[in-house]
Amino acid sequence: MTGTESERDYIQSIERGFAVLLAFDEELPNPSLAELAAVTGLSRPAVRRILLTLQRLGYVQAEGPRWRLTPRVLSIGQHYSGSNAMIEAAQPHLLALAERTGESASLAALDGTEVVYVARVPVRRIMSINVAIGTRVPAHATSMGRALLAWAPQAVVERVVAESGLRAFTAHTITDPERLRAALRAVREQGWAIVAEELEEGLLSASAPVRDRSGAVVAALASSTSSGRSDPERLAREVVPLLVQTADRISADLGHRAGTTRRSVVLEGRDGFF
Amino acid sequence: MTGTESERDYIQSIERGFAVLLAFDEELPNPSLAELAAVTGLSRPAVRRILLTLQRLGYVQAEGPRWRLTPRVLSIGQHYSGSNAMIEAAQPHLLALAERTGESASLAALDGTEVVYVARVPVRRIMSINVAIGTRVPAHATSMGRALLAWAPQAVVERVVAESGLRAFTAHTITDPERLRAALRAVREQGWAIVAEELEEGLLSASAPVRDRSGAVVAALASSTSSGRSDPERLAREVVPLLVQTADRISADLGHRAGTTRRSVVLEGRDGFF
Repeated sequence: MTGTESERDYIQSIERGFAVLLAFDEELPNPSLAELAAVTGLSRPAVRRILLTLQRLGYVQAEGPRWRLTPRVLSIGQHYSGSNAMIEAAQPHLLALAERTGESASLAALDGTEVVYVARVPVRRIMSINVAIGTRVPAHATSMGRALLAWAPQAVVERVVAESGLRAFTAHTITDPERLRAALRAVREQGWAIVAEELEEGLLSASAPVRDRSGAVVAALASSTSSGRSDPERLAREVVPLLVQTADRISADLGHRAGTTRRSVVLEGRDGFF
Repeated sequence: MTGTESERDYIQSIERGFAVLLAFDEELPNPSLAELAAVTGLSRPAVRRILLTLQRLGYVQAEGPRWRLTPRVLSIGQHYSGSNAMIEAAQPHLLALAERTGESASLAALDGTEVVYVARVPVRRIMSINVAIGTRVPAHATSMGRALLAWAPQAVVERVVAESGLRAFTAHTITDPERLRAALRAVREQGWAIVAEELEEGLLSASAPVRDRSGAVVAALASSTSSGRSDPERLAREVVPLLVQTADRISADLGHRAGTTRRSVVLEGRDGFF
């Protein structure tokens, strides 16, 4: 395993392993080897070797000529949750916020053009199976994304604009780059974001930034509701003060002292951006 | 990539990629390259190449000389949830069960000597951040494990006995193989399991098997409570009938028709067992 050629092979096999693992989804829950080869663009022998490896690791299981993921795949995410001090620190604050607002409370981080739910407290009214952790939503059309992008370097915002194409999800989605930039300036000035029905009709949410000890925005705290139960003005009046207070408390638990502020933390890969 | 040697390399690099990814945990949330090498037993150059690959894929991020997982790791588990029809089918039933019992409802699958939570509805009283998905608990000391093992092939039960060592978690844990086998026979005869304080003092739970269209037990439905709110007799009287009815409804939604029963589905790897 020395030299450029071997190193390239080495890297590629890991990439291909994930490509096969992630090829299983709603559309392809029980793929055959041929289907996996077609979806990943890999040869059947390559896919077969990867499947046998993933089977040996316990992540996939054969069912006749078809394959399926095992629940062991779920355990991988636990390593993120377990290794992230922010999630544990945020937990009591999310509970308190959900109790006081009677609405679900969430914590999300920026990943490329999307935000990922990293913690969530659902409320009884909309009691839902807790599969929301790991769910991804577009940054430009959500209050969590706006709160994260508001303090992100300009280059990150521009890449989100370019790569997401500011896709419209409803008639209310901001799709004009200049309007989005203006919305982010407003969020930065007021310290919180409200987004109404830009991702889904009837969905309202408010978000505030969570900062780490360096002052960098590392997550967005969000409270979500529906247009049947609230409206943007009421959200701003009744929920935002609680939300900002709670986000500040989480930040304080992470070692942040008021007055220290920095740009958002964004994922930067070897290519600079994902 | 032909020949035995290359195939072995190919497999090994995927295994090593997961070894490095899973080395991040509560004890080692922000490891250095040297720490990852020590924990995985790999050389520093090998760990470095893997980290650069995982960084390129967006799963890890450098923070000075240390590394951390990114929230993208959480998305991997979504592929399991998304590709598993059972989880979607079970959702309304878990909600209904949690509403009627006022206690959290969970769905779990067997993975080696452990059970993995694949879906969960927490209740407001013990409203908790929903990180429970993917959590692993020992099969021998939980009602979910007992419900899954009761219909599993004898060889699977014997391997759980051998590999788990039937570790005692409380003074109540069944640690004698013969007592465990008798407990599983009782579960098979009555059609459900109750386990009281064998994993944790104060923790009580009841479970019933969920079957797929072939009649195989594919998951356990569980209702959990505490010894302060209930006791095994009350659980059997008040919760078990609802639990069994709900498990049967999920099974029916999966295409199971009453009367068709088969052994549990267990994960079998190339080595026969994980």
